[in-house]
Amino acid sequence: MDKIEKIQRWLSDNNRDIALISDPKTIQYLSGFYSDPNERVLLLVVFKNSDPFLFGPALETQAIKESGWSNPVYGYLDHEKPWEMIADQIHARNTAEINFAIEKANMSVEWLELAKSEFPTSDFSVNLDQMLDQMRMIKSPDEIEKLKIAGKWDDFAFKTCFEAVKAGRPESRVAAEMSYALMKNSIMELSFPALIQSGTHAAEPHGATSDKKIENNALVLFDLGTVWDGYISDATRTIAVGKPDDKSMDIYKVCLEAQLTAQEAAKPGITAEELDKVARDIITKAGYGDYFNHRLGHGMGMSEHEFPSIMEGNQLVLQPGMCFSIEPGIYIPNVAGVRIEDCIHITENGNEPFTHTTKELQYFG
Amino acid sequence: MDKIEKIQRWLSDNNRDIALISDPKTIQYLSGFYSDPNERVLLLVVFKNSDPFLFGPALETQAIKESGWSNPVYGYLDHEKPWEMIADQIHARNTAEINFAIEKANMSVEWLELAKSEFPTSDFSVNLDQMLDQMRMIKSPDEIEKLKIAGKWDDFAFKTCFEAVKAGRPESRVAAEMSYALMKNSIMELSFPALIQSGTHAAEPHGATSDKKIENNALVLFDLGTVWDGYISDATRTIAVGKPDDKSMDIYKVCLEAQLTAQEAAKPGITAEELDKVARDIITKAGYGDYFNHRLGHGMGMSEHEFPSIMEGNQLVLQPGMCFSIEPGIYIPNVAGVRIEDCIHITENGNEPFTHTTKELQYFG
Repeated sequence: MDKIEKIQRWLSDNNRDIALISDPKTIQYLSGFYSDPNERVLLLVVFKNSDPFLFGPALETQAIKESGWSNPVYGYLDHEKPWEMIADQIHARNTAEINFAIEKANMSVEWLELAKSEFPTSDFSVNLDQMLDQMRMIKSPDEIEKLKIAGKWDDFAFKTCFEAVKAGRPESRVAAEMSYALMKNSIMELSFPALIQSGTHAAEPHGATSDKKIENNALVLFDLGTVWDGYISDATRTIAVGKPDDKSMDIYKVCLEAQLTAQEAAKPGITAEELDKVARDIITKAGYGDYFNHRLGHGMGMSEHEFPSIMEGNQLVLQPGMCFSIEPGIYIPNVAGVRIEDCIHITENGNEPFTHTTKELQYFG
Repeated sequence: MDKIEKIQRWLSDNNRDIALISDPKTIQYLSGFYSDPNERVLLLVVFKNSDPFLFGPALETQAIKESGWSNPVYGYLDHEKPWEMIADQIHARNTAEINFAIEKANMSVEWLELAKSEFPTSDFSVNLDQMLDQMRMIKSPDEIEKLKIAGKWDDFAFKTCFEAVKAGRPESRVAAEMSYALMKNSIMELSFPALIQSGTHAAEPHGATSDKKIENNALVLFDLGTVWDGYISDATRTIAVGKPDDKSMDIYKVCLEAQLTAQEAAKPGITAEELDKVARDIITKAGYGDYFNHRLGHGMGMSEHEFPSIMEGNQLVLQPGMCFSIEPGIYIPNVAGVRIEDCIHITENGNEPFTHTTKELQYFG
């Protein structure tokens, strides 16, 4: 049963006629076509009992057809009214009363109001998100293959970074060398702006790569990801330049133990919150609990914002095919920051990481 | 009157108590702080009669404070319930019945449902979008300065591209050289993935840079933008490698005339649709009207998706401070594609472009 058929089955089971898919990533997952339409409308309309259609900007319809999508595609020009045209296509297929399911975390209030104005007596209360999140959470062997390739390029990116690191060189220059090396190999896209942060700068867990010069005798944090055929990699390494102080060395040791122990514990049967606790307990016992101020990990696949979320309160039992990060961090303001991260996929007996760069403390520069 | 005060005045005039600002770009515009929170919650809450607050992930609160935001900031941890915490802060300030205004084009149906569950008797029907779009549409001198700097870097990017162009070289390699040159100058971010498309590939107006080798005797299209302090540039040039065929040369000539004529016509008093028509008439008269399948331009500033939209049906009268692209294109499938674009700001008497790279056909490679 293909993905569209799964949605049709779900519509039938949930007494819905039509699913309106508005998240560009979900559209890519289901159709193979990706585009960020920005303020324009791109919508996948899935009917319970008939073939789906894609609706989008006229200047995308050729690309949609070439992407392998074999069902109908309808385009609109900038001065046309997309929601009227979508409604016309729906009415042409389905004259009875129509109930909709929508992606509530993605669809804007504006789009919902536009859809309601075309179908004033329809019901839009049912949410597709949980079903889609469940579908996307368990990766197929084909998806795992793409994630492995993205991971391989992340290892390559770490190597180019480490070779470029030197005390006194701006963080931004190291990012430039890494990005250039990837692009020369036709890896054009990072999954997010790379974070390269030296010394105290790394204590800002959501800081950005800056023109700050890499300190000598300090730790440097690298959080990087690439994209391969719509699937991402995401990993973090922290290395040493010169001889970091004892406090830096201590938080590295604690963070590494937390990461390795949690990664060892990630297997079918453990819950997400139990796994978070494995790492958190080690950091808390070492006295750094207050400095680990985020969840242990996030689900990933087509983005780094998928399920499962590895955090307190999530009692989800891990199963084969789930892909997520294990990324404990210790950030001590004005001292240093350490984060160590691999993304893994759960296998029948344990897990496998997508990145293989060593996590033992390395010295460069 | 500062921007927050303008919103407070609007709330008062529109009988609303609170504005919920959810679009990260709007939050940056109003607060100076930018972050893409992805699936996490970042919200700016503006009260009619008291100071606003920012609410976001705990790992962002330090960065928010350092960004210069002097009003309260509240953070939440990943396992906490952000909408309950936001509601607690609102209740602590305002115990009467509360009516909200929201950003309907940005706020998701899910967030609206979460907000409504905290304030079940409140009204959320009023839309902030038009007021905010109007505010953002007229740029201040300070904003124009940032756009000029971003434009200067776009001219630099064109120069590095043109120097790197060579028949037989992959499009992606030219993009790598351009990106590397920018990053070595600490310009870390493009406003969108650069489009470098050679020959027939340029006939896909929303295609992407690929590993296709640059053809000899063909046109090559470059659509590029950079970011400077949150403000973007965006421009397109089409150049020749070798000796393109007569058809390519003809559509270049027509497109250039359309672009120059429209840019000359852009001044206070003309409407957006009239300006679109200036360019479209030239292209239609030359017989290529069907191959110009998008609007003439989009508003720009903090993104390339702002107002005004320069298209049929938009009777908005252009005014000083408006910033937008003028980008006619002619795309003939399997033959060639040409687009020529400058972004400009309307001045008291006419307009000024942000990019100055020549638009006369240039030969490289």
